[in-house]
Amino acid sequence: MQILDGKVAAQAIKDELKITVAQRVIEGKKVPHLAAILVGNNGASETYVAAKVKACEETGFKSTLIRLEQDISENKLLEKIEKLNNDPDVDGILVQLPLPKHISDKKVINAIDPDKDVDGFHPVSVGKMVEGIPAFIPATPYGIMLLLEHYKIETKGKHAIVLGRSNIVGRPISILLSGNSNPGNCTVTICHSQTKNIKELCLQGDIIVAAIGIPGFVKTDMVKDGAVVIDVGITRIEDATKKSGFRLKGDVDFENVSPKCSWITPVPGGVGPMTIAALMKNTFRSCEMSN
Amino acid sequence: MQILDGKVAAQAIKDELKITVAQRVIEGKKVPHLAAILVGNNGASETYVAAKVKACEETGFKSTLIRLEQDISENKLLEKIEKLNNDPDVDGILVQLPLPKHISDKKVINAIDPDKDVDGFHPVSVGKMVEGIPAFIPATPYGIMLLLEHYKIETKGKHAIVLGRSNIVGRPISILLSGNSNPGNCTVTICHSQTKNIKELCLQGDIIVAAIGIPGFVKTDMVKDGAVVIDVGITRIEDATKKSGFRLKGDVDFENVSPKCSWITPVPGGVGPMTIAALMKNTFRSCEMSN
Repeated sequence: MQILDGKVAAQAIKDELKITVAQRVIEGKKVPHLAAILVGNNGASETYVAAKVKACEETGFKSTLIRLEQDISENKLLEKIEKLNNDPDVDGILVQLPLPKHISDKKVINAIDPDKDVDGFHPVSVGKMVEGIPAFIPATPYGIMLLLEHYKIETKGKHAIVLGRSNIVGRPISILLSGNSNPGNCTVTICHSQTKNIKELCLQGDIIVAAIGIPGFVKTDMVKDGAVVIDVGITRIEDATKKSGFRLKGDVDFENVSPKCSWITPVPGGVGPMTIAALMKNTFRSCEMSN
Repeated sequence: MQILDGKVAAQAIKDELKITVAQRVIEGKKVPHLAAILVGNNGASETYVAAKVKACEETGFKSTLIRLEQDISENKLLEKIEKLNNDPDVDGILVQLPLPKHISDKKVINAIDPDKDVDGFHPVSVGKMVEGIPAFIPATPYGIMLLLEHYKIETKGKHAIVLGRSNIVGRPISILLSGNSNPGNCTVTICHSQTKNIKELCLQGDIIVAAIGIPGFVKTDMVKDGAVVIDVGITRIEDATKKSGFRLKGDVDFENVSPKCSWITPVPGGVGPMTIAALMKNTFRSCEMSN
């Protein structure tokens, strides 16, 4: 069993970006600029945004963190986005989800200029991805593709089982893995809450992508020998022995499943860091396209 | 074995639309107006467009057929589309594909106002469909969903095998069938040219959607007893006994496969008529939304 180490692969991507950004500076070109909006002070959101800002610092990107009160009106938030849309210095706009309940996620996502939609959630980005037109691909599935690429995992003709059909992970990764690309060209089975025989389907998987948010869902009797297992789950489990009071647990029973795998992602340190690397790649791409 | 009769289901949809349109007329409201652009004189395209115009007549829609020369420039075609985009009387714009080689399909599709994109090929339409936002769904997959709905085929929890990953059929129908909707909620496996064990996968299918364009590809030993088989294939086969010189053949070996099925679509008379009914539904929806 070998580890698909997201920290290592993400670092390699960030290192490469850092060199390219430094080169842009030498050439007198603009550096990529990511603007992140954080509404309220959800603990997990704080952590994610902080990690993104830190990644910007590491790679020489400019970043702007805009903190807004939990009770900000939807209109005020939309105005903020419009301002960033019109700011030629901003290449990528990211609104950390989830938003407070009085604000519509969809309205906010649709308000972002598709040319700055580095999270890849705007319908235009999604449509382009489906049609195989170059597009901002959502960070988590893009990160998974980059991880497979980094470790040169053969995917062509493999049967991938995707657990989960969310717009953020399951749906786009099933589209990407089944696309005519490399990585890609998998036969893909997409499973969800209405799937009847998940265990038998998983046993057919050369590749399993677990993105359902149920800690430890994928057990050893669901995985065939030699499978590649990608664990997207990241649930906070109470743990009094930790300083933070919790630990992170994936959708895969790593301890028992990992000995059967050819490759497996750990949690944390697998898909998580790749998500940030993918966001950096998208922001860089946006900067390059317009400058 | 029972036939999923596209002619019957399409007629029912058109009859319903006809009544609703007549009601609109009584209320002094505008009738739906479909503008179809046909470039050159490809035989199959002529047939398809004629059928669409005829369906408009049957349902009380207004239709405009715009014929353009095979050698029209891309720019001239784009200007034509822009004019239709700006014409408030036009609810739906349809450019019959394929276009001559010197014209970019993508550029033309992207030029259509997403609010009039009744073929559902614009990235905005595709993105909305993926994200489950009400959208114009491409006519063929939408037609399949309407056919399943008409015959009240239970799809929830069923395993659907989709053969083909084209943007026109395979990809969108795999998204629709796996969505949280009714029809829908299937586990979906998407297969394509790189899939290794198509036969074994098909044998797992409670539902098989064949959309690869290889006549007679799905044979009796690939289908389990009681399966629902949807045949999207429609290839012209030379046939000297026919006045036209050809006959239409689907992707399924109907003669031998049909006895095993619970339901199956014939070719012709299955998915084909539903495609047109779906286009009518989209055009009607566009008219209703803006008037």
